[in-house]
Amino acid sequence: MSPGRATDRVTIKDVAREAGVSVTTVSHALNNPEGSRVSEETRSHVKSVAAALGYRANPSARALRTRRTDTIALVGRQLATTEHLGRMVLGAQDAVRAHGGLLIVADTADDEDDVIGTLIDHQVDGIILGALYHQAVTVPSALAGIPTVVVNAFTSDPRYSWVVPDEVAGGRAGAEVLLASGHRRVAMINNHDDIPAAHGRAEGFIARCRESGVEPVVVSCKPAGSAAYDEAVRLLQAAPDERPTGVFCFADAMAMGVYAAAAQLGLRIPQDLSVVGFDDMILINESLSPRLTSIALPHAEMAAWAVERLYELLDTPGAQAQNLRIVGRVVERDSVARPDH
Amino acid sequence: MSPGRATDRVTIKDVAREAGVSVTTVSHALNNPEGSRVSEETRSHVKSVAAALGYRANPSARALRTRRTDTIALVGRQLATTEHLGRMVLGAQDAVRAHGGLLIVADTADDEDDVIGTLIDHQVDGIILGALYHQAVTVPSALAGIPTVVVNAFTSDPRYSWVVPDEVAGGRAGAEVLLASGHRRVAMINNHDDIPAAHGRAEGFIARCRESGVEPVVVSCKPAGSAAYDEAVRLLQAAPDERPTGVFCFADAMAMGVYAAAAQLGLRIPQDLSVVGFDDMILINESLSPRLTSIALPHAEMAAWAVERLYELLDTPGAQAQNLRIVGRVVERDSVARPDH
Repeated sequence: MSPGRATDRVTIKDVAREAGVSVTTVSHALNNPEGSRVSEETRSHVKSVAAALGYRANPSARALRTRRTDTIALVGRQLATTEHLGRMVLGAQDAVRAHGGLLIVADTADDEDDVIGTLIDHQVDGIILGALYHQAVTVPSALAGIPTVVVNAFTSDPRYSWVVPDEVAGGRAGAEVLLASGHRRVAMINNHDDIPAAHGRAEGFIARCRESGVEPVVVSCKPAGSAAYDEAVRLLQAAPDERPTGVFCFADAMAMGVYAAAAQLGLRIPQDLSVVGFDDMILINESLSPRLTSIALPHAEMAAWAVERLYELLDTPGAQAQNLRIVGRVVERDSVARPDH
Repeated sequence: MSPGRATDRVTIKDVAREAGVSVTTVSHALNNPEGSRVSEETRSHVKSVAAALGYRANPSARALRTRRTDTIALVGRQLATTEHLGRMVLGAQDAVRAHGGLLIVADTADDEDDVIGTLIDHQVDGIILGALYHQAVTVPSALAGIPTVVVNAFTSDPRYSWVVPDEVAGGRAGAEVLLASGHRRVAMINNHDDIPAAHGRAEGFIARCRESGVEPVVVSCKPAGSAAYDEAVRLLQAAPDERPTGVFCFADAMAMGVYAAAAQLGLRIPQDLSVVGFDDMILINESLSPRLTSIALPHAEMAAWAVERLYELLDTPGAQAQNLRIVGRVVERDSVARPDH
């Protein structure tokens, strides 16, 4: 909590710290006068500390007085229910905790305005609007006047700060891993959807390959293991001196299809074929044999950056909006080796 | 929202419905008198509707008056950041929405009392205490007096309703899938951790096999693909007429190790080896080739049941606590077939 805001209100935590007891004890001492959980001596001590600090036990009365609650809501479609966004929640949570606040997560469906209205009713301090995947978003008008930062998405509205993954850099990193191991015949199995991640990663992959005088093969299909399996079988059925020795996949789930295709064709990973995934889904990548090298999306880093921008807005209403692309990270495991031939 | 509670407070939604405008418009009309987003005519209409209904725009004032906010918090360690609990969040969310409420999710670390205290400050109506995996929990004393239901965990405290997966039934289902396809030499690769899921599933698997006169092999290891790979290689290296033709895994990630072992040993799935997973991690199971048959944990169903118990408690404080075990569901895909020999 920043010094400028710490003085705005006295919290139950302040009372607990000053009284040298737990938050629970303060709560029981002040709220359950008939209970037997707290001794009369402790109750009396806590009450005098609370009075000295000017603490008001009734949260509604306190909220009326200060309108500060230090709670940040991460809001978005399917955010809390999607398997791979845990790191976004974690990154936001750690950053909010470092500021002494609480992060809550609320999913929206077709009721975005409704959810946001309810959160505003509950006096959240600010909103992080998150997206399931890198895309353009329109910030709901219900958020006008509420400190808001956008994460994993961008908006043309200049009032809002936003942060997205640097997809081009991600594609370059995928190429770099293969080129650095000496691969010259490389392929990318891309997602055929018309989204920034697919365009950006292919752009970066192709550009980095060409800088090393390598012309990659790029094919596209739906982002599923079975579709990638079919593409991989087609790519790998070529003659040994023509087929790719390294394959970069748009997603780890697609790399699973490449593993299955290699097994089907009798190709060993990484001796006969190197594979690089994307997303760093640990559950998949640590369970594949060999473990899959992948590019991690910067979900935690993006969320942490968004929280910092949000606290800036809380401290300095009207602070200049900022935009950022964050580069992912290569997570090296066991699926890349020098090509045999 | 139940009739008994609907009259407790007038919400912004009620005003919007009655005025025939959106929640956003009501908010702007009542809260931003200087703004240009709403015409004076609309503002005047909304204000008169709000006055007629007795709506108080100031949420703190309203909370002081009614102490009802119709917000339910799902709270637990790593709940929002763990990849496979999305269905628990989704199940809770859908059930809370059906009651006209909002579900928020808050992770706890070592600050459970603190998080709960803050949520209580924000006047949540009730708490669903969720666990990452089936285990015993102690309900934090900070929750005394707050309507609370426990999900994916059990407690010896008779005041609280709880719901867990029926692990024995899950193990029986795994055996049933293999036995129904004619397998007589079957194995289970179990989790070696001392947890209810491991004990219960093995108990059910063994019991169901024995009912059909089959004596299964059960081995245990850490719940990871690489460890299961090692166990599977050991099991499958036996002579063709001695090795298991069907393997039931404690988790889908472990089944990935069995797939890799089968590929390594030249065994085809499902022709030479049938495999059944557990957890129904769709991301894994749809990407494996062939797609993995698995037992789904009843995360959504447990969460929905917990929400119903919570609303019962809200309607009838002191309602009798209930406990339930819910049976998972077999999700049949392509990894089980009749044994060749």
